[in-house]
Amino acid sequence: MQKETNSDNRAELPRVAFLGMGIMGAAMAANLARDGYPVVVWNRSAGSPGVALAAAAGAEVAPDLAGAVRDREMIFSCLGDEKDVASVLGELVLLASIDSLVVDMTTIGPGAARELAGELESAGLRFLDAPVTGGDIGAREGTLTIMVGGRQEDFDTALPLLRVMGKTVEYCGPSGSGQALKLCNQVLCAVNMIGVCEALTLAGNIGLDERLVVDTLGGGAGGSWALSNLGRRIVDGDLGPGFMLRHMIKDLRLIEENAAVELPGTEMARNLFQRVSESSSGADRELGTQAMISAYSNRTVVS
Amino acid sequence: MQKETNSDNRAELPRVAFLGMGIMGAAMAANLARDGYPVVVWNRSAGSPGVALAAAAGAEVAPDLAGAVRDREMIFSCLGDEKDVASVLGELVLLASIDSLVVDMTTIGPGAARELAGELESAGLRFLDAPVTGGDIGAREGTLTIMVGGRQEDFDTALPLLRVMGKTVEYCGPSGSGQALKLCNQVLCAVNMIGVCEALTLAGNIGLDERLVVDTLGGGAGGSWALSNLGRRIVDGDLGPGFMLRHMIKDLRLIEENAAVELPGTEMARNLFQRVSESSSGADRELGTQAMISAYSNRTVVS
Repeated sequence: MQKETNSDNRAELPRVAFLGMGIMGAAMAANLARDGYPVVVWNRSAGSPGVALAAAAGAEVAPDLAGAVRDREMIFSCLGDEKDVASVLGELVLLASIDSLVVDMTTIGPGAARELAGELESAGLRFLDAPVTGGDIGAREGTLTIMVGGRQEDFDTALPLLRVMGKTVEYCGPSGSGQALKLCNQVLCAVNMIGVCEALTLAGNIGLDERLVVDTLGGGAGGSWALSNLGRRIVDGDLGPGFMLRHMIKDLRLIEENAAVELPGTEMARNLFQRVSESSSGADRELGTQAMISAYSNRTVVS
Repeated sequence: MQKETNSDNRAELPRVAFLGMGIMGAAMAANLARDGYPVVVWNRSAGSPGVALAAAAGAEVAPDLAGAVRDREMIFSCLGDEKDVASVLGELVLLASIDSLVVDMTTIGPGAARELAGELESAGLRFLDAPVTGGDIGAREGTLTIMVGGRQEDFDTALPLLRVMGKTVEYCGPSGSGQALKLCNQVLCAVNMIGVCEALTLAGNIGLDERLVVDTLGGGAGGSWALSNLGRRIVDGDLGPGFMLRHMIKDLRLIEENAAVELPGTEMARNLFQRVSESSSGADRELGTQAMISAYSNRTVVS
């Protein structure tokens, strides 16, 4: 990942803040720091392991939000949900340098993204929505898919840094478009999971070795990333994340709130995820989306 | 495909009949003939283009079913549905040599396969169910996935010939197991199609370029064969088969008849396919499964 030019020319690189040191944010900030960018990180709870991880990669740790964003040309954020983003970025209006470029990588839906873009822009800031897919592994390895909405010239400005964090960086159109594509991705992930769970359920019901579904069908017309990766976890009895069930439920709620169209399969997936989450009484914090299989069978929900 | 050993040793190769010269059967029989096997083909309507295709590849054409199966050690069939198979293979009991190995490649469901196995075996014949996936291209190129149920020793006997017709040839277990795995495959194909249609519908509704869904999301966690192949056909406005809508509806009926378990996503897919089929008034004979998109939008059903 290290580019010599960046290490050699730190003075010419944009000064970066990264807000939110969860699993994803910390890994992305660490990649920027390792690539030579001067990065200051901030997290609401300073004791988070993500803060230490970013610091170990060379990032500076800011004691407060004001300290993190002062004199920063680019401000990245990766937070929990749209309320967190509205709260943190709302403070930015008062704190950040006029004309900083704010790049939010949280999944918050196109409506919230467009609203934020409006607020920040009327305060003189610029804004890109840039949600990601690819999970913690993608964040660590810099192989995320990053879907970006906003002005083309702001995208061009952010592109070198986004390329450090992701392998596929796609400009999707005006503000909210990155979020829109991310929601389309979640539709695919959610509905494909129904397919995986029902194929495995049918196999079990009909007396077939479930592994044949994953091993034999994965390379054919029934194949999907979900089958090869999460289907395999199911037959191995591993319901841990992967992608967290509760995050998927949040993302599917965003679809309902942002789309004016009936998506019955997506709605079914949401109900199945919800049922599993409710019946797992707290253990859902440790469940991946493949735990949907628990809605189909009397498999024990394991944490 | 041509193996010199087979061309050199035709006398030692099993004599083969192939019943049913539809698109799939004709291509598979042609591959066997080209590989050096002595193949006699039969089709209920002798004028089918498939008959000519197999003959051009070196197969002999039988005037009637009795002529096709006389003195044949192996009898393959690829017919329309379970009624056709029961009717044609029912006649075999009276016609075929005792101890011929019958390999049916039609999708008929595990129940019908087990029933046929019983009938044929009580007449002294042996039976394998060996449905396929991979479509007409796979049949032509010999790259099908072939899923086989029956006795292991019969599988071993058929294996060299199945390897000529398919790239992945999988022994799935006792009689009906090949059919069972095929139905699992159809669950995946059907439900993944819901995912593709809903992701594209959401994109359209939310003002996003639909091509981004196929191009950007295909390589990630939302990716599937259905998205990369049939999703692309949808955005290109091509609703032709691929895999025929009406065949998928038949296969999903077989699931309902063979499984004693609720599969709500599969049921939803079946209803969507059915709705498209009914509203296309006869044009469904020319529609592929991706025509499901017509159930979501006011796209014109094109034939």
